[in-house]
Amino acid sequence: MEIQEACVEACIAEAKASLAAGGVPVGSVLAKYDEIIARGHNRRVQDNAPVLHGEMDAINKAGRRSDYPALTLYTSLSPCMMCAGAIVQFKIPRVVILDATNFGGNEDFLRARGVAVHIIANAQMTAIMGDFIRDQPRLWNEDIAE
Amino acid sequence: MEIQEACVEACIAEAKASLAAGGVPVGSVLAKYDEIIARGHNRRVQDNAPVLHGEMDAINKAGRRSDYPALTLYTSLSPCMMCAGAIVQFKIPRVVILDATNFGGNEDFLRARGVAVHIIANAQMTAIMGDFIRDQPRLWNEDIAE
Repeated sequence: MEIQEACVEACIAEAKASLAAGGVPVGSVLAKYDEIIARGHNRRVQDNAPVLHGEMDAINKAGRRSDYPALTLYTSLSPCMMCAGAIVQFKIPRVVILDATNFGGNEDFLRARGVAVHIIANAQMTAIMGDFIRDQPRLWNEDIAE
Repeated sequence: MEIQEACVEACIAEAKASLAAGGVPVGSVLAKYDEIIARGHNRRVQDNAPVLHGEMDAINKAGRRSDYPALTLYTSLSPCMMCAGAIVQFKIPRVVILDATNFGGNEDFLRARGVAVHIIANAQMTAIMGDFIRDQPRLWNEDIAE
């Protein structure tokens, strides 16, 4: 598949917006080909909403629709078990991961259920997330339930 | 473990409240022993929030806390893949399922990850959910992504 650079940039912008608001810098985008359907970011700090990881916020904002199997999820950080489960449940067939260095482990769970996983190793996002984990380990551990 | 009847009743009350509001009748409760920490129900119709299944709504309402590994999740319907992933991600160690007849399939996923799964086959909840699936198949299929 073709990676849509505008979707990658939107994920990074969402992550940066969350960081600027004091939150966890994970951003996600749902796209249909090159059209952005919804974008979101982690809402733990901002909305006291622990289930609203970036991926979940984007899916929630996409709302009630029947075309999830035609969408691609771009996400700035590799999905946790909750978000991986959501991707499978909503039958989202493709995931583009900007950073699987700072967190990962559910890629094979997704692949085993037929999800195409593309890891693009975006250097800017990997640096932002690495800095966040180093600077705010307590918030990071809270968000990832460690 | 001991099943707390008040938590079972609260799940059913949440499911009924959702049904009365035109929504999907799934209710969930997070409890610490006999203390109800949070309760919630499916918000697809009411809030146009497809990720807020009953379990997710309850977890979200429990909010930022460190004691998820001390909680029990009661849920009126067996968890979908998204909710099962969330249970594992939040390290919730025990799940009480009122109805695994109308929907199920992720119990072994949970057990394989160390979650204790108790299916109590509540007749009232099983009847409510069965009626809903028969009466509103389109909404049910939408919610479960079929």
